[in-house]
Amino acid sequence: MHEALEKYGAGAGGTRNISGHNKHAVELEATLAKLHATESALVFSSCYVANDATLATLGSKLPDCVILSDSLNHASMIQGIRHSGTKKIVFKHNDVADLEAKLASLPLHVPKIIAFESVYSMCGSIGPIEKICDLAEKYGALTFLDEVHAVGMYGPTGAGVAEHLDWEAHANGKPRGTIMDRIDIFTGTLAKAYGCVGGYIAGSAKFVDMIRSLAPGFIFTSTLPPATMAGARASIEYQMAYDGDRRLQQLHTRAVKEELNARDIPVIPNPSHIIPILVGNAALAKQASDLLLRDYRIYVQAINYPTVPVGQERLRVTPTPGHTKELREKLVTALDEIWTRLDIKRTSQWAAEGGFIGVGEEGNVQEPLWTDKLLGVEQATKEIKAAGVPENGITEALLAREAHNTNRVMDVSA
Amino acid sequence: MHEALEKYGAGAGGTRNISGHNKHAVELEATLAKLHATESALVFSSCYVANDATLATLGSKLPDCVILSDSLNHASMIQGIRHSGTKKIVFKHNDVADLEAKLASLPLHVPKIIAFESVYSMCGSIGPIEKICDLAEKYGALTFLDEVHAVGMYGPTGAGVAEHLDWEAHANGKPRGTIMDRIDIFTGTLAKAYGCVGGYIAGSAKFVDMIRSLAPGFIFTSTLPPATMAGARASIEYQMAYDGDRRLQQLHTRAVKEELNARDIPVIPNPSHIIPILVGNAALAKQASDLLLRDYRIYVQAINYPTVPVGQERLRVTPTPGHTKELREKLVTALDEIWTRLDIKRTSQWAAEGGFIGVGEEGNVQEPLWTDKLLGVEQATKEIKAAGVPENGITEALLAREAHNTNRVMDVSA
Repeated sequence: MHEALEKYGAGAGGTRNISGHNKHAVELEATLAKLHATESALVFSSCYVANDATLATLGSKLPDCVILSDSLNHASMIQGIRHSGTKKIVFKHNDVADLEAKLASLPLHVPKIIAFESVYSMCGSIGPIEKICDLAEKYGALTFLDEVHAVGMYGPTGAGVAEHLDWEAHANGKPRGTIMDRIDIFTGTLAKAYGCVGGYIAGSAKFVDMIRSLAPGFIFTSTLPPATMAGARASIEYQMAYDGDRRLQQLHTRAVKEELNARDIPVIPNPSHIIPILVGNAALAKQASDLLLRDYRIYVQAINYPTVPVGQERLRVTPTPGHTKELREKLVTALDEIWTRLDIKRTSQWAAEGGFIGVGEEGNVQEPLWTDKLLGVEQATKEIKAAGVPENGITEALLAREAHNTNRVMDVSA
Repeated sequence: MHEALEKYGAGAGGTRNISGHNKHAVELEATLAKLHATESALVFSSCYVANDATLATLGSKLPDCVILSDSLNHASMIQGIRHSGTKKIVFKHNDVADLEAKLASLPLHVPKIIAFESVYSMCGSIGPIEKICDLAEKYGALTFLDEVHAVGMYGPTGAGVAEHLDWEAHANGKPRGTIMDRIDIFTGTLAKAYGCVGGYIAGSAKFVDMIRSLAPGFIFTSTLPPATMAGARASIEYQMAYDGDRRLQQLHTRAVKEELNARDIPVIPNPSHIIPILVGNAALAKQASDLLLRDYRIYVQAINYPTVPVGQERLRVTPTPGHTKELREKLVTALDEIWTRLDIKRTSQWAAEGGFIGVGEEGNVQEPLWTDKLLGVEQATKEIKAAGVPENGITEALLAREAHNTNRVMDVSA
């Protein structure tokens, strides 16, 4: 990024069509197409703009089209659908039966788009991608999958949950016939896991050309800075070649969830890296967040209405590969103390009242996407035990192994 | 920018409301508010997003509001108005009589917003800012002024055309009661003159807070990278303190326009730094652009329908402070040769057929915004003549003086 900044300057100098097109954009888009095994990709100012511009353009250009939208979809998708001016049908979050009923209610000749996400950021739930692809085929719908909270964090090359679901296949190249291959349109971000800024779509060459040619949100705006695009590409390629950061993140996630559960602090269960800690009251969630910052120097944002329903207010924690055992313990201890100080309901209290959201709901108890097998937990545990590490030290020993590998890879790539 | 990149990393790490707020955003917004002498400012991913999000939010939240929009407004403003879902009335480009007739047709109690630009990028015309402010006061309308093609290039501190119009007042601080002070909402870009990427709005604290709180395009998207915001701020501050780049750009603009006119090549007259060269035919404009690149290694984009009306196709040239006499001569010679090779109509041929757009139209022959007086042409010419420079060398001597000053300033600031 320093080199690109020095050589190409602070900005791209124009829009993609008027003097802002450059090799960094071309290379980044080629990398993104390779990542998702699509023909083509297109970079936008942000994934907010990518979602908004793409759904608005698609929805307005497909005559009489209907967009079926998951009820927990991100604001950018909701805006895009609204801006398309076309008909929208909202289906219940991750509810394939409800989606099917709604698809079945539409005439066969009507163009349909199913818009959904892979990881839902506020609850950490995972979209039923394969089942949605089945329905899309059965009812002739296009699939639009937002992988914003998954790219760089799931799959053997970091392409997201769709790739993750066929791990073995994608670990040995990206063959046809996979779940990933059945998605028509991917969107993702260059921020979050990739650490930069910007967003993109990936799909067939014809589809990407259509959006390139028709979406005002792409046409009439300056290209991202060359250094940002060079940095994003380097970041994606690093994550394509090495999955150690993803393993570290997942091991920390497991550890935090286990430690919180052990202290009777209510974690809304999910199969992802997102740790939603239920508070259930807006004022308390805000107070807990404030106390964490003031007394413990820990920044965790409270998530209140309208982002989540009233009564489901929460703190949201996302472990990174860079966290450590010490930081985890500091967080869990702080939360435990605050739960006592503010008298926030514990898991056992919720249980006495009949449980809380996401617990015991049918079909909701999903295994983590990063299974023991993918994380190599069993094999490593055996080896670590054989080396004489006591039972309660195994998680840390596993983390230490991963961190050691990551440091070695980063030394090599630096 | 290198320091910010090194210290704060490639990205901001989140949205403004969730972990992506930082001192770079705060400092940049303070600088922007100072630039436009407003209470507050707010940074977006781009000015496309700023215009879209702000007009959409404003138009949808002011009950029964009507937006009066100049017919040549940028696509981002057109989208914002469309997305607001409110009533839009288009008035003829820069036509205050038409605007007044449309304002007068609306009941007094209806909230009104006049949305317009200062420099229109495709023809280089300048919005009648003062007259529009008069009408806004008379009919109780808000003024929304896009200064995207003017910030960094007009005014004693680079705040744009609104500032430029009261040069003396603003050169000595930014007093109340000026034309700039009568504008309710400014929008501008951190790309173009400031060389980075991003956009912003500036206005009253209450207005900016309203957009901050309600615009999804601001709320649900990652913050610009810290290095980009630090770079943009440094660029704005440099241009606030020094007007030599602006003077150089204008002197080159004058020279190119003079040289093209001398060769009978049709320049659509305007008072700005934009040089629209009339071709009048889409195929010829494309061919001229292709020949310029292929045979002369000069990149000038053809501007065709729908960006301009059929029959008004053009090449668009924008001199920068970094151009030189040699580059200018190369361009003008190349255009002259291409005009002959492709048999494109010359100014004298247009004149024989009754003239062309922008020529001889009533009220359209405007003096350059950067007058002889502001550029110090008369005084400098006297001094240069006194130093024995011949008449035909005066423009270059003026440019050499400005370039020398600019190099000195840049050495100091480097």
